Amino acid sequence: MKLLLASKSPRRRELLSRLGIPVVFVDVDVDEVIPPSTPVELVPSGLALLKAKGYTCPLEPDEVLVTADTVVALDGKILGKPHSREEAAAMLRSLSGNVHSVYTGVCLKCNSGQTVFTERTDVCFRQLSEKVIMDYVNEGACMDKAGAYGIQDSIGMVGVERIEGCFYNVVGLPVSRLFKELNALTPLI
Amino acid sequence: MKLLLASKSPRRRELLSRLGIPVVFVDVDVDEVIPPSTPVELVPSGLALLKAKGYTCPLEPDEVLVTADTVVALDGKILGKPHSREEAAAMLRSLSGNVHSVYTGVCLKCNSGQTVFTERTDVCFRQLSEKVIMDYVNEGACMDKAGAYGIQDSIGMVGVERIEGCFYNVVGLPVSRLFKELNALTPLI
Repeated sequence: MKLLLASKSPRRRELLSRLGIPVVFVDVDVDEVIPPSTPVELVPSGLALLKAKGYTCPLEPDEVLVTADTVVALDGKILGKPHSREEAAAMLRSLSGNVHSVYTGVCLKCNSGQTVFTERTDVCFRQLSEKVIMDYVNEGACMDKAGAYGIQDSIGMVGVERIEGCFYNVVGLPVSRLFKELNALTPLI
Repeated sequence: MKLLLASKSPRRRELLSRLGIPVVFVDVDVDEVIPPSTPVELVPSGLALLKAKGYTCPLEPDEVLVTADTVVALDGKILGKPHSREEAAAMLRSLSGNVHSVYTGVCLKCNSGQTVFTERTDVCFRQLSEKVIMDYVNEGACMDKAGAYGIQDSIGMVGVERIEGCFYNVVGLPVSRLFKELNALTPLI
C-alpha cells in the first residue's frame, strides 16, 4: 500500500509518515469554499471531500489518497488561522479558561471506494496569563495554525488542562482513527 | 528561579526543559518502597515524596526541587516496567480494548515549603492486533516504560482511541498542572 497525502501541513506530513506505511506528498489546488450555512462539525469533512475531488490524477490499485481539514470551534464559531499577531492574541484570550472543540475531517479514497469521517476532541484551556499569551504570540508559531495555537507547542503544554478525545487529532490528524479506517478500506484494494 | 529535576527519565527531562525555566538534573538514591496496602492512586505521590526526602543537599533560595513518579493502573492493579518482551506483550494484550488510568505524582520542594499533587489521565486503547503489538515489542521501546508503552510512540499513535485528561501526564509529567502549582509556589521563594 502507498499513501498519497494531499496536505502541505508539516505536522500532518510528520504524523502520517510515522505510521510505517510509504507516504508521498501530492498537490491539490481547489477553492476551499463550502456553503456558509454548513454546520461547523460538517465543515472539515466537506473540505476534505473537496480536496479529494480536486485530485484528478488516476490512482494506482495500491494507492490511497488522504485529504484532511482541521477546524477549531468555540461556541459554534470557527476560529481560522490568524491574520495578524493581534488577532492571534485575541483568539488565545477567547480560548483561555474555556473548552473548545477541534474537528478533523478525513477522506480516504482508493480505486474501489472512499470513506469520510470526522473526529472531535474537546480541549480545556486553563486561564492563560497575558505573559504566557504574548510570549507565545511573539514566538510566531501561532500564525500558521487554526485557533492560533499548537497543542504540541509551549502554550499547549502549559495551558491545556485536559482534553477529551484523540490528542493527535488536535495536532492535525486523528492517526488512530485513520489507521482503523485504513484497515477497513484495505481489503477493497 | 531554577528547577532541580531528580529524574533519569529522558521524557521528563525533555518536557521540563521546554517550560522555558532553567533546569538542572540531579541524582537521588532512595529505595522506592512504600507500604503494599497503599491505594494505587496514592502510590505515585508517595514515591515522589520519598524521592524528595532522599535529596539531602541544601536548596538555594531560588531553587525548586522537582520529583515525580508515574504509575499505570488497570482494574486497580499497577503495571510496572516489563522485565521481558513476553511480559511487555502480555501487558499490551491486557490494555488492548480497555480503559486504564495513568497517575503521575509530583512533589515541588523549596526552602519555604513544598506541594504534592497527583494528576490522573484515563486512556482508552482500541483492540490491538497481534501484529501491532509484536511489531512494537520488537522495536524495544517498550522496555523502559510503565505499562510497556509510550503514548508518543507508534503504538500510542495508532492504538490510543481517546484520552480524558492531560496528554503529557501520560508521557510522564503533567506539565500544565506543574506550571500552575509552580506559579502558586513561587511567591513563597
